[in-house]
Amino acid sequence: MFGHTDIEKIFEAIRKKQKFAVMTGIKPTGQYHIGSLITCNEVLYFQNLGGKVYFCIADMEAYLHSSVPLKEGHETAIDNIADILALGLDLEDSYIYKQSEEKEVLRLAAIFSKNVTYNMLKGIYGEQAFGAYQSALIQVGDILLPQLGDYEGPLLTVTPVGLEQAPHARLTRDLARKQYFRDLYGFKMPSFTFHQILGSLDGGDKMSKSAGSTFLITLSETEKTLKKKIPAIITGGRDTKQEQIKLGGQPEICRVFDLYRFFFMEDDKVLETRLQDCKSGKILCGECKQDLFSRVNTFIEKHQEKKESKIDLAKQILEL
Amino acid sequence: MFGHTDIEKIFEAIRKKQKFAVMTGIKPTGQYHIGSLITCNEVLYFQNLGGKVYFCIADMEAYLHSSVPLKEGHETAIDNIADILALGLDLEDSYIYKQSEEKEVLRLAAIFSKNVTYNMLKGIYGEQAFGAYQSALIQVGDILLPQLGDYEGPLLTVTPVGLEQAPHARLTRDLARKQYFRDLYGFKMPSFTFHQILGSLDGGDKMSKSAGSTFLITLSETEKTLKKKIPAIITGGRDTKQEQIKLGGQPEICRVFDLYRFFFMEDDKVLETRLQDCKSGKILCGECKQDLFSRVNTFIEKHQEKKESKIDLAKQILEL
Repeated sequence: MFGHTDIEKIFEAIRKKQKFAVMTGIKPTGQYHIGSLITCNEVLYFQNLGGKVYFCIADMEAYLHSSVPLKEGHETAIDNIADILALGLDLEDSYIYKQSEEKEVLRLAAIFSKNVTYNMLKGIYGEQAFGAYQSALIQVGDILLPQLGDYEGPLLTVTPVGLEQAPHARLTRDLARKQYFRDLYGFKMPSFTFHQILGSLDGGDKMSKSAGSTFLITLSETEKTLKKKIPAIITGGRDTKQEQIKLGGQPEICRVFDLYRFFFMEDDKVLETRLQDCKSGKILCGECKQDLFSRVNTFIEKHQEKKESKIDLAKQILEL
Repeated sequence: MFGHTDIEKIFEAIRKKQKFAVMTGIKPTGQYHIGSLITCNEVLYFQNLGGKVYFCIADMEAYLHSSVPLKEGHETAIDNIADILALGLDLEDSYIYKQSEEKEVLRLAAIFSKNVTYNMLKGIYGEQAFGAYQSALIQVGDILLPQLGDYEGPLLTVTPVGLEQAPHARLTRDLARKQYFRDLYGFKMPSFTFHQILGSLDGGDKMSKSAGSTFLITLSETEKTLKKKIPAIITGGRDTKQEQIKLGGQPEICRVFDLYRFFFMEDDKVLETRLQDCKSGKILCGECKQDLFSRVNTFIEKHQEKKESKIDLAKQILEL
């Protein structure tokens, strides 16, 4: 996390053991990938501190933004939910729903449509198609859903997002702040945390499903696919072995090092040692990737085993 | 009715005793008035011929277009429903709902938002606020609701509208015609009838709640208010009594004659006699208005009596 809006309120609620909600979601456009783990870990962190998770399957957004038919989104969602359950989501303290089935979200989006102008939307999102703006209003509906009377009533919420999603935070707060809605719903201003975004394997800015599966590691990789993907990850290695032994690697531009840093080397001392070994040329990229491969492979194997046992439950949740 | 789109299909269904739906609605922005009776009579006509009525309380539209809060719309809706029940709607063959509570309508509106462009909306409705376009998509959702699988499945529908609502017919047919939706929902192209619009009492183009209560006759007028309103109706009378006896009246520009023609003189022969008596100067505006007063007053008194007995039922329907 490197930025936030109003997070102090949430930490105060945690200290005072007061109720709060953690609002998050996933677009059912493909398999869960390692980039999404950043948000997921933060959500689980807040759940462990007492937050109730509102987990939205953003299937309408997937249709409006990425042309994924709702039926296809449904199948993907089952897979995604099995992942998040395997990752440790506590169902007892969660509310999982699909946008396309949640009347109150669609209703809020329709109501809010009166209270925006093209200039406001353009100022926040740039020039977009009509459906993309509609999709933005639906997301505002998601973020404010936990505050409705039929749900938790007005309460504190925190939504962890990547920095690229800061516009949603802005639009949500702009709408929640309007006197008409404060009178009607008693909204408390929603909090947001902004976290770093994992880059794509080829050095791109963001590990994202929309860029295609070559550039990301999903939680469904096999040993075989990992053996192809990990050697191809862009590193901070030099042109030749000799050069690298002499000059050392450049971990600051290395996606392998990012993966260690974010997920696969929890012990800070071990991470620091690896950083030094890289910079001094003691460890070369091949060996470092070999190590990464075995860590990722072990993680995914264990995850898949847990996930397998959650598929039926995921189906039940979505087909209620 | 002076125009239609695809009405032949409906008459064929009636001949063959096949199922069809009559889709209509009312914006809960005020009391039912005589102008709305035109649509209402047509809806009841189709219901008598075997159509199932889908009656929408357009409360979201009332909010988006006319800033009527949903709660206020709810109270007005109860009154409106009591009116339509008193006018003869057969509940056995009706489905009455509020837009703001009908998930499938909100859902269709969201889905359709992907399939419109600003140019398309601007071409149909002119330059409008974002919420007004949203409202238009919600109306498309209403018109296609009876065709969804959870309702009547793909079936013929007819929607009677005033000519000023022709744009909705166009947008609805434009969207229903898209291959993606035809594949998904199996939509049959919806039919529309276009009818004349009753003018406002002061000579304006349309009797409409938005112009204010001075210019319309509601179904809740009292003898006292009628005694003020009817004398003030604009007629085709001449400047002086002498002139009118000599030249005759001008029923073609007379709102009193419109009221006879539309509602208060069912017998065509009687209407024709009145027309001639007016044109020949035999009957003057004062006497003609006196006659109108007693007919309207009797109609409203009888209606109010019937309506009184329907209020509780109307509440029940909307507060389910």
